[in-house]
Formats: sequence, C-alpha cells, structure tokens
Amino acid sequence: MSLLIQSVLLDGIKTDVYIEGNEIRRIGKALPVDRADKVINGRRKALNAHTHAAMTLFRGFGDDMPLKEWLEQKIWPYEAKLTAEDVYWGTKLACLEMIKSGTTTFFDMYYQFRAVADAVEEMGLRALVAGVCFDHFDGTRRTRCEQENEQLFREVERYGRRIRYAVGPHAIYTVSGELLQWAHRFATEHDVPIHLHLAETEGEVQNSLKQFGLTPVRYLHKLGVLSPRLIVAHGLYMDADEIRMLADNGVAVVHNPASNMKLASGYRFPYCEMREAGVRVALGTDGCTSSNNLDMVEAMKLASLLGKVWRGNPEAIPAEAIFESATIAGAEAVGLKAGRIAEGYVADLCLVDLNMPAFTPNHHFISNLVYAANGSCVDTVICDGKILMEGKHVPGEENIMEQAARRAYRLVKNG
Amino acid sequence: MSLLIQSVLLDGIKTDVYIEGNEIRRIGKALPVDRADKVINGRRKALNAHTHAAMTLFRGFGDDMPLKEWLEQKIWPYEAKLTAEDVYWGTKLACLEMIKSGTTTFFDMYYQFRAVADAVEEMGLRALVAGVCFDHFDGTRRTRCEQENEQLFREVERYGRRIRYAVGPHAIYTVSGELLQWAHRFATEHDVPIHLHLAETEGEVQNSLKQFGLTPVRYLHKLGVLSPRLIVAHGLYMDADEIRMLADNGVAVVHNPASNMKLASGYRFPYCEMREAGVRVALGTDGCTSSNNLDMVEAMKLASLLGKVWRGNPEAIPAEAIFESATIAGAEAVGLKAGRIAEGYVADLCLVDLNMPAFTPNHHFISNLVYAANGSCVDTVICDGKILMEGKHVPGEENIMEQAARRAYRLVKNG
Repeated sequence: MSLLIQSVLLDGIKTDVYIEGNEIRRIGKALPVDRADKVINGRRKALNAHTHAAMTLFRGFGDDMPLKEWLEQKIWPYEAKLTAEDVYWGTKLACLEMIKSGTTTFFDMYYQFRAVADAVEEMGLRALVAGVCFDHFDGTRRTRCEQENEQLFREVERYGRRIRYAVGPHAIYTVSGELLQWAHRFATEHDVPIHLHLAETEGEVQNSLKQFGLTPVRYLHKLGVLSPRLIVAHGLYMDADEIRMLADNGVAVVHNPASNMKLASGYRFPYCEMREAGVRVALGTDGCTSSNNLDMVEAMKLASLLGKVWRGNPEAIPAEAIFESATIAGAEAVGLKAGRIAEGYVADLCLVDLNMPAFTPNHHFISNLVYAANGSCVDTVICDGKILMEGKHVPGEENIMEQAARRAYRLVKNG
Repeated sequence: MSLLIQSVLLDGIKTDVYIEGNEIRRIGKALPVDRADKVINGRRKALNAHTHAAMTLFRGFGDDMPLKEWLEQKIWPYEAKLTAEDVYWGTKLACLEMIKSGTTTFFDMYYQFRAVADAVEEMGLRALVAGVCFDHFDGTRRTRCEQENEQLFREVERYGRRIRYAVGPHAIYTVSGELLQWAHRFATEHDVPIHLHLAETEGEVQNSLKQFGLTPVRYLHKLGVLSPRLIVAHGLYMDADEIRMLADNGVAVVHNPASNMKLASGYRFPYCEMREAGVRVALGTDGCTSSNNLDMVEAMKLASLLGKVWRGNPEAIPAEAIFESATIAGAEAVGLKAGRIAEGYVADLCLVDLNMPAFTPNHHFISNLVYAANGSCVDTVICDGKILMEGKHVPGEENIMEQAARRAYRLVKNG
C-alpha cells in the first residue's frame, strides 16, 4: 500500500509526503500522485515513553490522597483482582486515548503481558511491552521472574513488528540486585530494552542509602547494570555525578511531569542538566491512576511550564526542546527509526487540525502545539504506514469505551 | 424563550433543568416538556476571572523569553499599533475560544473598551470589561484616566445586561496612589468592581518597598482602597498578615497558574492559606501572550497540580476546591448569581461530552473534568439562557478565525 499526503505543512513549508509500506519514502513538492489519500495541513508525532496502559480503568479513582494510602487502599487491592480480560480492555482504552491525542508508540510496563500485546496488536499502535517483575528480594520469586521473561521473549515473536519485548524490573526497592543483573545480562544477550522506575521520590533515595549504602544511580552503577539498553522512568532525584554516570553509560530518562506533580513526588527534575550532560530525556505520562490522562501534548506543556517556574527562568525548556523529548528522543532511546518526518523513517505521524483557536493565529506552530493546544488537535494518525484515525474518529471507539467502562465499574464494585 | 434540558447528570443524579428567559427556574426529575431542547449528560460552568482577551492575536509570538525583553521587544511595540478593529477581532477570537472551552463569563482588562464590549455583545458571553488605565504618576494623565472612565461608565448602559463596566487600574507600579483612591471612590459610588494586577513578581514587591516603603497589600491598605469591590490578579507574593488584610476587607484574588508558570513569575501561590483565611480565590488564564490559551479546564489542572507538587502534598487543592474557584468563587467575587446550577441562578451552563476517553470510566465526574479532560470536552454552552454552542460548533467560527488571523499577521508583519 502507498499513501500520499499532499500539501502538508512541514517545518513551515508546504510539501508532500509519500509513504510506501511502513516507511516514509519521499518528501518533496508536487510528488507524483500514486494513490493519494488526504490533504490536510500539519504534522506531529509523539512517543509516550512511560505508561501503564491498563490503569485507565482506575482513572479518577482515588485522587487527592497521599501516595501510601492511595497505593494500599485504592490501587493494590484492586490491581490484585485484574483479570487478563480486564487488562486487555484497559489497554484497548489506553490505546484509543493515545491514538486520539496523537501518540503512535508507547513503552508499557504492566501485568498480563499477552493481554497488553493483544490489545496493541489490534489497535495498530507501536509498543514496547514490558511485563512488570518483582522478586521482593526472594530467590524463588526471582527464578520465576527469569523463567517468565524467557518465556515471554520467545512468545513475542508471534506478534507483528510493531510489538517489541522489553524487560521490566519494577524498581530497586522491589527487585533484588541479582534480578537486576540478570535483566541486564538478558537484555544484552537478546538486544532488548530494560524499563525501570528510578529515583522517583525522596523516600526512595533515603531507603536506597539505608538498604544499599548508595544513592539509586550509584547502586545501579555498582551492580554494573547501567547501559544504553536501560530506560529509567522519573529520575527526579539525582546529583551531578549521577547524571554524569547516566550520560557515560548511555542511559535514557523518561520525565513524567503530570504524575510527579499530582502525586507530589517533586518538581526539580534536572531536565536541563541531563540534556547538557548528554543524557537522552524522553517524555511520558505514567499511568492514568496518577496522570489521569495519556495526553502527550499536555505533557509537553506541563514539563515546559514546570521547568520554567521552579527555575525562575522563562527561557528554560523551550517548546522545541520538549517537542524533541516527546518525539525523537523517545524513539532513539528504544532504537526506533521514528519520531521524525524524514525519508527512511517509519511512517508514524499525525496530521494536526489547524482550524482551531489554539492554532489561530499560527505565528509559530511548535509553540502553539506545546503551549496552546492539547491532544484534541490531532485529526489523523498514521502508524506503521496504516491510518488508525481520520477526522478525529477511530473505528469502533464507542464499543471500546463501553466495554472498558463496564469492566471498570465491575472491578470497583466487587473491590 | 424556555428551554428544558432533560436527563442531565447533575451531582451524580439524572435530572431535568428548566430555563426560562435567562434564569434557571426549576431543577427536578421528569419536568413537564414545554419547549424541550437537548438531551445530553453533563454539566459545568466556568468563569475566567482574569484575562486580556484581545491578546489572542499575539498567541505564540515571543515565547521562551525573559519578561523584560518579551515586553519591550515583543508586546509593547506591537500593542501600540493595535487599532479598535484589531482589538474587536482579537476579542471575538478570544470569546470563541472561551465558548469552545466552556467559559461563560470573563473579566477583561485591555485597551479599546468599546471594541471589547462590541465583540462580547455579539458573541453572547457575559463579561466584566475594564478599560486598562495607567497614569504613570503623572497628574495630567490621571485626570484623563478619570474622565475616560466616567465616560465609559455612562456609555456601558447602551450594552445589554451581559456586559458590566469595571475600573481597571493596571498595577501599583504604573498607577499613582491618587488614581487608585479615585478608582476606589468611583467604584464605591457606582457599585462597580475594580481589577488590578498585584504582587505578581518578586521584583514588584521589591520596588513597592523601595518606592512606597511598604509591601503591595500594605500599601493598598494604607491608601484605604481594600474593599469587597477589589479583585486582584496574581497575588503570588503575600505574607500571612497581608492575606489577613485581604480577608478582613473582602478582597478577592484571581490565581493565574499558566501565566505564573510560563513567565516564571513564581509557584508559591498561597491558595490554601488564602482560602483558610476566608479570601475568595477565583481562577483565570491571563492573556494568550503568557498563557497561550484561555482554557479554564486546563487552568484547573495546572492550579491543582502545581499546588500539590510545591507543597509536597497530594491532598492539597483537591478537584472540588479548584472547581469551586473556577465557578462560584469567580461569580461571587463580582456579585453575579451564577456559577452554580441551581434554581434562581442565571442560566449560564455547559453540557459536557462524556463520550470521550477522559470520562471513561466515569468513577468521579469532577476528578475527570479537572485531571483528565481539557476544554475540548465541552459540547454545548448556554449563557444568559441562550445557546451559544451546540455539538462543539459555534456558528460563524471559521470566519472569526480567518479574520483574526489575517489581522494578527498584518500586525506582526508591519511591526
């Protein structure tokens, strides 16, 4: 299949984009019309680099609570009851929400790997799927985690090229050093990414010092698990030396501003310092229990505004920088040739509806996208060369919302 | 004209709302069908308590710059060129954006009072219009400001009941104490509100100490201009005693989180302290040059998340509190019987589209509205008993965007 997008506004210039299969083949003016599709102005592509998709089922369930109570009373007891079917529908809903707000690829870490992968396969997005693993410093559980991951890695082959396996050790306070080292060896051997929550709260740093005698990054460094395959989520609490360790070892960091703000984890995310040191900083939403939505356009605004205000510097985190974090940085972190509309890149892109107040006037497209718009500006989404949404409507969206809501109400009612 | 909204979800209960003229007359189940209109679930009403509507023309023009450079290079030189027609179209665009994101009333402070009022009159919103005044501590200018305001106050009668006059002294660093005292007397005599920027930056506090020997609120207190007619915008830098002075004198404060963040004015807005002391705290967006949009739904999320994170307390500023700030608090501050869907209140309300991922599942409507949604969830807007938007479309919106964009490009090009 080939697709021609005519007269699209790309970097301020009207041009055509020609897609063959799942690849952007040619960009230029007045390309020959093969099988022309749409003619809309606009472009954008976002990669949500950290989420727990199925948690959409718990959207708005237990807000405005302290982290510990929230986890113990609201999240964990209900998560324990989640069936594969629940996770499947929760992930379908999350995929729908991401498509509608212009995300084409996401990095997920949750339970029920197969249910997540099935949902992504059907919805047409691209995803790195990590089955979350915990051994709670118990040798028997560790062995089980390792076996499960070996099994999942073999199974993932039955999915198409859009779905990739990743190892998902939860965090340093729930996963032993041995399991982290196993994950590192496994990832190196099979060339797959590792996703890990790290340095999310001050409490985590204090516990790390108490339990391991080292701050989180130094502990990972000592374990020998820092590598370009490691993508850490949050990374709020790090000093200059730790940032240097991440840069030297090619570790990428995913900033989750909505979650960090809503759970009051902290605001001093060292975005500028990390980028200056050469660390790749991607952007994520975290799950809907803490961020309440999966809107990467909103995440860009939150990250930029929060960075400016706590630094007291309106020049910090300009629109172009955070747009890069939301697109190319995430793609590069997981080794995808995506996140850029350029020849030879995979055909993952969005067409933006410019006929909205947020883009009126359109003095500066990226500024309007980051500071004025939200996910509702996305009109058309193409992933892997296939159209997933046109005219702001995803085929079957009503049914997905209905099924997911029904499961969510049942879960909470029986909780 | 009478309007019946059937089976609307109000405080979690399905009910009917009957509107006669511009007033909500009855709320109850299965009300008699007179002239039935729509059947949609949902409700909400927002009041944008501080903006400069016509500044939409400068959206995305000069982002990521320090305040001083931004004002001197980007805003002031271009504002000086604004014609009445520019302001008229800029305000039309702003009204369109507010309707589309569910705002029914706003408090504006800008140049070209008549152009603003004309635009509001046509667009069907409710507004308090303040002509901004500066005397720069010059006696001649002061007299001119006073005369102008007396003239505008007389003229406003030719507009309908949706448009109210307010006095708009810009700020304590641009307006003399004499003019502030005149505004206070004038407002008392005619029973109109006063709008004033106050304590927006640390620099303003330092200058106030230098120039007047007092912090901003203490200075106003000494001038004898604190009163329930005074509505101050920003109010970021205030100590406990100043908050007490505001409370004792019935002064209301408008929080503008997006603007405070983007211009890096500061994040420690004393929302909780003010409410505890009994100060009415409303919510605003500020103008599109600093907030980049006029989305009050987004403003609620920003205010809540920013408050939680700097206080390190996820329980701070819960969804219900900020919803109150965005609705009833703003209405009360300006003496409007609005901001609540209740019998005897003016018929200013929105119907929200619940058929979106942000409201799926709908465990908690206000939480979804504040934390998951954005202005694009608004389906229908009714102001003063009249339908301004249905099915997310405002009649004539394409023309407004086209005209406003054309004027904006011309302004910048000739700048």
